[in-house]
Amino acid sequence: MQSRRPYNADVMTTPANTSRKTWNQLLLVGVGLLGGSIAAAVRQAGLAKNIVGVGRNPERLQAAQQAGLIDSYSTDLPSTAAESDFVIVCTPVGRVVADILTAATACKPETRLTDVGSVKATICSELQIQLPEGHSFIGSHPLAGSEKQGFEHACPNLFNNRTCIVTPDENSSSGALKDIKQFWKSLGMHVLEMSAKCHDIAIAETSHTPHVVSAALAAMLASENQPLTSTGFRDTTRIAAGSPDLWVDILLSNGKAISESLRTYTDRLNEFQNAIADGDATTLKKLLQEAKTNRDSLNT
Amino acid sequence: MQSRRPYNADVMTTPANTSRKTWNQLLLVGVGLLGGSIAAAVRQAGLAKNIVGVGRNPERLQAAQQAGLIDSYSTDLPSTAAESDFVIVCTPVGRVVADILTAATACKPETRLTDVGSVKATICSELQIQLPEGHSFIGSHPLAGSEKQGFEHACPNLFNNRTCIVTPDENSSSGALKDIKQFWKSLGMHVLEMSAKCHDIAIAETSHTPHVVSAALAAMLASENQPLTSTGFRDTTRIAAGSPDLWVDILLSNGKAISESLRTYTDRLNEFQNAIADGDATTLKKLLQEAKTNRDSLNT
Repeated sequence: MQSRRPYNADVMTTPANTSRKTWNQLLLVGVGLLGGSIAAAVRQAGLAKNIVGVGRNPERLQAAQQAGLIDSYSTDLPSTAAESDFVIVCTPVGRVVADILTAATACKPETRLTDVGSVKATICSELQIQLPEGHSFIGSHPLAGSEKQGFEHACPNLFNNRTCIVTPDENSSSGALKDIKQFWKSLGMHVLEMSAKCHDIAIAETSHTPHVVSAALAAMLASENQPLTSTGFRDTTRIAAGSPDLWVDILLSNGKAISESLRTYTDRLNEFQNAIADGDATTLKKLLQEAKTNRDSLNT
Repeated sequence: MQSRRPYNADVMTTPANTSRKTWNQLLLVGVGLLGGSIAAAVRQAGLAKNIVGVGRNPERLQAAQQAGLIDSYSTDLPSTAAESDFVIVCTPVGRVVADILTAATACKPETRLTDVGSVKATICSELQIQLPEGHSFIGSHPLAGSEKQGFEHACPNLFNNRTCIVTPDENSSSGALKDIKQFWKSLGMHVLEMSAKCHDIAIAETSHTPHVVSAALAAMLASENQPLTSTGFRDTTRIAAGSPDLWVDILLSNGKAISESLRTYTDRLNEFQNAIADGDATTLKKLLQEAKTNRDSLNT
């Protein structure tokens, strides 16, 4: 029988256990909100001698360098990867596999390779097949972010006290796993290990479905009612301001798990709808109490 | 043909137009988050010589007095109403009609009577029939609040720069309407007039449906996935921590408009679901873009 808990609580470790490791050259592929925040956090913690950013737009990279986030930049991934001992791909989920493969083809086998994508199963299974012999990729998903985009919103404390999920498989190098876990811990994160598939099912419920639920609410707002929204509407729809391109990518990369989670959601919503339509105060109170209990159990 | 806009833009006035009026005795029936915040705001702005709280629990009222929110308190509504020139009922929507009627039976006809309930049609139509001859009640709904409860969370700035809807009808006293609008403006609010029925339809979309949408999401969270929630889930479910009792009352008092609004919502959600199930990136992006555009148009 499969446990309902998708991760092993034994491997949930706190930042207190952390020892530090310093990298010679950290390469961030994609210097947006997440890449920029990793750069800021790594610099603050002194975890890398050199932080390099790779991207497609030299002007944006130059601005990120001028902002003090990265030490240097390049639009040439292979040559930069060849000189780096740690590569973190922070591009949209649809580009992670290609970027990791490009880096892996150029870098030393011992270079650590990870990403920050919020979908893991397709990325990890494709890379398990396609990664050059001797290289190791372990997926990461730091549960930290914002509806805002761009390195201008980067924050060195974005990861502090948050959870990071890493998704090794049976072929993962134990040395790579240790290093990557240690890296996230040294940014102040609590690290959980789980399979890529379990990750995608769980995150469908805790992140992807909430995004759809929130976006559908924002999408239905009649323009004449905009002045009549209060903090409740604004909180509930905050994440709907996220980038449509990034989210199309995420939602379609985890479509099956999200579809299933949305069915659970609409069943639940139906219970509320029926209780309201029937004027059934007892059922409605039970549902609202269940919601409140769950919400209160989250600390912020 | 009816305009889609449920209020008259001409009557949307800003705090800048405001002149001040001072009340001899302001009576707050119910000293929780809203009643307490009104007390704090009125004291800060010096709008009343005396602020009295009425409620059912003397210990809570005494604590609110000790916190400096009210000058005195009583559990006897009629005798306190008789001495007050302004009465604001801040009890749950299911109790507003009874509390206004109790106050009206005891107070002078010129005493101003309003409430802060987030449902208006039933309250206003019942009071139009039942209010003693010569008295005037005008419903108010300040669009300000919190998922928190109790005067301990009261804040004098809760109303600042927010919208307050007032719902007069054809029999409303113009003097009462002027005074009540001026009162909310002097707390820094933008005041909108609309019919109670239009209010309930609009607020079903901007507040009541969001509450249900948020609560259904919180209710479906599996306990083992709680550590996997991030800020997105937390923002989207924040209002689900609101009081179940208060919300049963609200949702069942505006059931028809909410049921209709929830149908619009589920239609919208279905479009997202279908696009995800079909892997239809074009439609999904269009929907997400619509959501983002609407959300971005709200300033915070």
